[in-house]
Amino acid sequence: MQSAGKGQRGPIDHERREQILDAANEHFRHYGYKKTTVADLAKAIGLSTAYIYKFFDSKRAIGEEICRQCHERVMADVKDAMGSGKPASERLRLIFLTLARDGIDLLFNDRKMHDIVLAALEEGWSTAADFDAELLSHVRSVIADGRDAGEFERKTPLEEACRGVVLALQPVRHPVLLEFNHNTLIEDASLLAGLVLRSLSV
Amino acid sequence: MQSAGKGQRGPIDHERREQILDAANEHFRHYGYKKTTVADLAKAIGLSTAYIYKFFDSKRAIGEEICRQCHERVMADVKDAMGSGKPASERLRLIFLTLARDGIDLLFNDRKMHDIVLAALEEGWSTAADFDAELLSHVRSVIADGRDAGEFERKTPLEEACRGVVLALQPVRHPVLLEFNHNTLIEDASLLAGLVLRSLSV
Repeated sequence: MQSAGKGQRGPIDHERREQILDAANEHFRHYGYKKTTVADLAKAIGLSTAYIYKFFDSKRAIGEEICRQCHERVMADVKDAMGSGKPASERLRLIFLTLARDGIDLLFNDRKMHDIVLAALEEGWSTAADFDAELLSHVRSVIADGRDAGEFERKTPLEEACRGVVLALQPVRHPVLLEFNHNTLIEDASLLAGLVLRSLSV
Repeated sequence: MQSAGKGQRGPIDHERREQILDAANEHFRHYGYKKTTVADLAKAIGLSTAYIYKFFDSKRAIGEEICRQCHERVMADVKDAMGSGKPASERLRLIFLTLARDGIDLLFNDRKMHDIVLAALEEGWSTAADFDAELLSHVRSVIADGRDAGEFERKTPLEEACRGVVLALQPVRHPVLLEFNHNTLIEDASLLAGLVLRSLSV
C-alpha cells in the first residue's frame, strides 16, 4: 500500500512531507512508534489527519520512511568503511566492526529508533529486505575486488561466498540479537571477521 | 536462588519432583510459561504450593529445569551428529544442520517450549550460558580432531577458531532469530557450514 512518491508534487509538498517526518521522528523517539497515532502527529503539526494521509497511506508508511532513513545512515557508515582505499580484507573487516558499532549506538543512544527497527522486522516491512539486499551488494563488491587483486580465493562460486559472509554478519548486525550480545559485540565482530577472512584466503 | 538438588532426598522425593515437572511441562505447553502460576501447578497435582516450594524455589526454577531438559534433547542430537565416525569436516557440517532442524522443530512443533526458551533468554537464566558452553566444548572437540587428522589448519589459535565457529552458528541456532529466518534456515546452515569449513581448511 505504501507509495514512496505519494503527494510529492512540488517543493511545497516536499516541505510538508518533511514536516510530517520531522514530527513523526520526534514523536516516535519520545513516545515510541507503537504508542503514536496519526492523530497525534496531525495535532503536533496543526494539520488534519486527512492532510497527512495525502502524503502517507498509514502510520506504517511514515515508520517505513523513518526506518529507511535510519538504514541509510548505517549504510553511509558502511560505504565510508568500504571507500577507505585499503585492501579488500581490511575493508571487509571494517564492515563487521562498523555494523557492530552502529548497532550498539542504536541500542544505547537511540532506543526508540531501535524499537522502530524491531517493529519493521516483526511486521515484515520491506525496509529490512532492502537493507539486506544493499548489504549483499556491498559485500559482493568488496569480495570481487579482493578476488581481482589476488587477495581472495576464486574457487568458491562468488554468490555462495557472498551469501555466506552476509549470514556471518548476522550475529553482529541483527537488531533482535542486540539486547543479548551487545556486551561482546565488538569482540564478536573481530572474531567473525577473522573467520570470514580465513574462509576467503587463497 | 535455584538449587538443582533441592529436596532430592530419596526415591519418593525424586518421584514427586518428576510429578511436578510433568505437570509443569503440560501446563507450560498448554497455557504458556508466563500464564502459569505455581498455584496452578499445585492445583493440577493436588498438592499445596508450599509442597512444591519444598522442591523448587520458584516458578523460574521449574522453568529452568524444563528448559535444561529441552537443551539436553538438542545436545543429544548434536552428539549423535558428532559421534557418526565421519571426518571432522562432515561432523561439523552436521552440527550446523542438526541445530537448524531442531530449531525449526521447536518453532513449529513445540511452540510453547520455544516461548520458555525465549523467556530464559530475556530473563538471563543460566540455561542459555550452559548451552553455549556445552556447544563450544563439542565444537572444540571436533576441530581438535580435524587438526589432529590433518583435515584442518593449525595456524589459528584453537580457541579463536572455535569461538568464531560458535558465533557463526548463531544465525542457525539463536532462538530469537527463528521467527525471522526459519524459511531459509536449512540453506543458511549449509552456506555457513561451507564458509566455516573453508575457514578451517589447510
